[in-house]
This record gives sequence, structure tokens and C-alpha cells, in this order.
Amino acid sequence: MPTNVLFAAKPERWPMYEAPLNAAFAEVGIEAHLATDITAELVDYIVYAPNSTVQDFTPYTRAKAVLTLWAGVEDVVGNQTLTQPLARMVDDGLAQGMVEWVTGHVLRHHLGIDTYIHGQDGEWRKLTPPLAYDRPVTILGLGELGAACAQALARLGFPVTGWSRSEKSVDGVTCLHGPDGLHRALGSAEIVVLLLPQTPGTENLLNAETLPLLPRGAVIVNPGRGPLIHDDALLAALDSGQIGHATLDVFRVEPLPAGHPYWNHPSVTVTPHIASETRPQTASRVIAENIRRGEAGEPFLYLVDRKAGY
Amino acid sequence: MPTNVLFAAKPERWPMYEAPLNAAFAEVGIEAHLATDITAELVDYIVYAPNSTVQDFTPYTRAKAVLTLWAGVEDVVGNQTLTQPLARMVDDGLAQGMVEWVTGHVLRHHLGIDTYIHGQDGEWRKLTPPLAYDRPVTILGLGELGAACAQALARLGFPVTGWSRSEKSVDGVTCLHGPDGLHRALGSAEIVVLLLPQTPGTENLLNAETLPLLPRGAVIVNPGRGPLIHDDALLAALDSGQIGHATLDVFRVEPLPAGHPYWNHPSVTVTPHIASETRPQTASRVIAENIRRGEAGEPFLYLVDRKAGY
Repeated sequence: MPTNVLFAAKPERWPMYEAPLNAAFAEVGIEAHLATDITAELVDYIVYAPNSTVQDFTPYTRAKAVLTLWAGVEDVVGNQTLTQPLARMVDDGLAQGMVEWVTGHVLRHHLGIDTYIHGQDGEWRKLTPPLAYDRPVTILGLGELGAACAQALARLGFPVTGWSRSEKSVDGVTCLHGPDGLHRALGSAEIVVLLLPQTPGTENLLNAETLPLLPRGAVIVNPGRGPLIHDDALLAALDSGQIGHATLDVFRVEPLPAGHPYWNHPSVTVTPHIASETRPQTASRVIAENIRRGEAGEPFLYLVDRKAGY
Repeated sequence: MPTNVLFAAKPERWPMYEAPLNAAFAEVGIEAHLATDITAELVDYIVYAPNSTVQDFTPYTRAKAVLTLWAGVEDVVGNQTLTQPLARMVDDGLAQGMVEWVTGHVLRHHLGIDTYIHGQDGEWRKLTPPLAYDRPVTILGLGELGAACAQALARLGFPVTGWSRSEKSVDGVTCLHGPDGLHRALGSAEIVVLLLPQTPGTENLLNAETLPLLPRGAVIVNPGRGPLIHDDALLAALDSGQIGHATLDVFRVEPLPAGHPYWNHPSVTVTPHIASETRPQTASRVIAENIRRGEAGEPFLYLVDRKAGY
């Protein structure tokens, strides 16, 4: 009897995922019936996007796990009807895309590239930037994405400090943790990259009290989650010059409304939540591997800690 | 008796180099007399910038070597009065700066960052770029700088092809050489980086015949030497869309004249020869090591092959 796998995501995702998922199931030897409409009581696994129409998990009495397509689980982790094991997406392609976006924007700010993109006026402005060795970068968050970005930047020569809530260790990166660690991590950072999960403990982490800890003119790069930043505090810090620039990929409301002050602020770059996306091919392999594990009675990968919220 | 070291460069360089050079001499145990005015016949070594007033080397009868501060030697290698050994500058800081500039601009084009810098108009343009794995990059030139850039880009995931006149091998990089190799290297390159030395054989390498070999819309990044590109051919290729963008750091005439068409072309970014500069501290150590070698009767590092021109 085939394993029944419900695909519960926005309808436009189905044509992107159907073939890669079936190919990945075949690769690991799972005979699966993958569909967008399976009677709830017969579903074995739910491949899940938090913005799908499935919000009540009560009818899925047989489901062995909910396997999300998203790295961030803040929109599902608090769902009281969800009693099945919940696994996050940890996708190579997602980490790779994030490393590329973060490295690109950190180098853009480090090299002052905007000056040349805006300043094609015939004036030869000879300003050599410092070398990366002299440009301290701090990454807030040392999960899969934060650690991958920290290591890529360290390999390019930047002195990288990483901060996480609990103690972690990443090769080539100065790792700090806890409230004291945050003060130190912000104190030296000329560029700060936010890659924390969104939890009650991380919401508004950058606010009117913490933004002044950064050196004057520091640059903020946020490909993590919009609510990590208190927006009014950031706008005030940009206006005062305390923050030199903010490149923001994520927002409290997405798409960012057309009239939002971020769009018109000369020291803000808005990118439309493109820093990284789950890629169907690599993500499908992660899903298939977890279903294989479930069927073999092995522990699932990337299980969410409901209490921690990620 | 101290070793007499003449500093022959633009006067504004002297305050930048005096202390680092003396510190580097002390580090390797050389007792040196470093000055900008030493009787020609008493000079043991010349620390040299090709734009200094020293153009006739005939009076320097005792000089054991000319040690340039520049990576490019095209302005001195043809000097018939220069019969002493000539060493190029190979500076860690210079390679590091070049890797940063090249990686930054390659990622900028790869990620389409300009779209967001120019397009802060309230429109949420959701375009996810391909991953680096799917963005072939070609580096023309596999000397110290080309090889370092090729490896940094390969580490980020780009499939990198390198081309050089003679056969070379660089870990993680597909190496091609010769005229046939050039056709192949250009044929697949979505982004091309020029890091060739300027010689009669490389002048106008990108011209009306070779630019059409690139895939339509390819991006050119030139931190090497201005004359590697035939300017009129490039402008025509930009106008036709054959070349999507050119980011140019070096030019036939520098500073680039205010009225030059590159300044006003919407598909050209001009940067003012900042991709990499010799850094006094690291460069001084290279100079000092070569003088130590000369005094110890050991072979000099980085000697220029006069016939090859670099």
C-alpha cells in the first residue's frame, strides 16, 4: 500500500513540486501517493507551507509528521491543533542562496559600491576601502543559515563574530551568546546581519536600546525576519546617522506596502524577500529522506522544538 | 655600511611608505639607508613606481635590482636603459583587495543588486536569481590575482573557467589556454573578469570579433588593464545588447576624462582604479624580503620576464 502524502501549500506551488517530490521519493525507494486532495484520515505525511488552507490538523489522525517547506516555522509552531512531529526545511539550496545574498550585500556595503552606481557623473572619486581584515562583521543567529554565512564571510577575510541565544561554536568565527554577548557582538560590528529565528525572545531585538550599541554609521542587513527589528527605532537611527544604511529583505507585512517609509528612505534598500527561497529539487530530497526515516522507524531530521519555537 | 635604498615614486607616496619600509627592513635584519635623494652611483636598490621622475636607469651603475611598487610593469618593461633585474610587486594585500572587489561585483551582477538600488519605487519585484551553481564565470588571466579570484568564486559555488595564454592549472577551476581555449572560455561565460597582464598579445583581446563569442547579455568586469578592451567595440556591443553591462575599473586614459561615453552609458559602471591597490605595510615586507635575498646572494622573488613582458 502506498504512503499517502498530502501536498498542502499554495496551488501555484504544486506544479513546481510535483515532479521533484516524486523523483525524490523514487530515489529513496518510497512508494508514495502524492496529491493535493487526500481524505484527511488517510494521510500519512503532510508536506506543508504555513500559508496553505490547512490550519486545523485535528482530522489528520494518522499523520506521522508535518514536513514544512519553509525554514521559518513561526506561523505554525503555535498551532494548538498540531500534535504531530513538525520538521523544518533545511535545504542546501536555501543555505547556498542565503550565503550568496548575504555575501553580496556585505561586500556591496564594504566596498561602497552604491557610490559608483549612483555617481556616474564624470568625477573620479579615488577612495580605496579598507581590506576585509579591518571590517568587523557580526551575524546574529548561528543556525544553519547564520553559520554558513559566517563561515563564507570569514573565508573572505572578514573578522566575524556570531551571536546566538545559547552557546554555540563555529570554526573561524568568534562565538558569543546571551545578553552580555549581545552587547559585545554589537559593540564592534560595522556590518550586522540578522539571521535569527522569529520567537518571542528575538522580536524587536534591534530597538531603541540596542541600536545605539553599534558603532556610529554601522550597516544593518536583514534577510532573517521582519519583526527582529523595531521599525520606528530603526527609522529614527537612520535619520540620526547612528545607522548608516539598512538593506532589508523581510518585513512585518509583505509585500511591503507601497507607502511604507522604508521605500523612500535614502539609506534603506528594500529587496522583496528574495534573499533565499526553498528550491524544489533540493527541498524535495529533504522531504523524501524524512519520510523514508519515518517509514523505517528512524528519528526525523530537523524536528522543531515547540518550546523554543524553532 | 648600510645598504642604500632609493625611493623613486610620486612625492605623496613617501610619507605613506617611509615608516613601513624601515620597519620591514628592521624585521628582516637589513641595515638600510632609505631616502628619496641618493647619489645615483651609490644606490644599491631602487624601490620604484613607473610614474616617478626616474626614467633613465643608466647612472645607477651599482644598483642590484629595481623593485616596483606596482603589479603591472607595462610602463617600465620596455625601458631600454633598465638592465638591472626588475621585480614586480606581488602583495598579499593587493590580491586580497582584488578578490574582494571582484567577488563583490560578480555577486552584484549575479544577484541583480542594481535593480533594487535603482528601483526603490514601492513595487515588490519578486525575482529570485539562479544559484551560483548555474552562473558560469570566466576569468581571463590566471596569474596570482586571476587565480586567487577564480578560487574565491569557485568556493562560493560558481562554475569557474580560467583562461591563460600558456597552460596553467588551478584547483577547482576549469583551465583553458591558447586561441581555441579562448573561444570555449568566452562561449559559456555569463560573467567575464579580465585579469590579464597588458602585453602586445593581450591588447584589444575583447574586440568586435571576440565580444560576439559571449552569450547575449553577458557582463564584463575589468579590474585588469584598460587596453585589454577595444573601447568602441565594447560600446557598440553594449548598445546592441550583446553585452548586458560592463563594470570597468581601468581605462586607457586615467582619470577617465569627464566627457568619455563610458560615464554616461546606462550599462556601464565606472570605478576609479580602486579594485586593488598596493598596501604600504604588506608591500614593504615584499620589498624588504627581496633586498634581504639580494644581500644574501639568494635569487630574487617575482622577477619580470622581459621577453614575455610580465
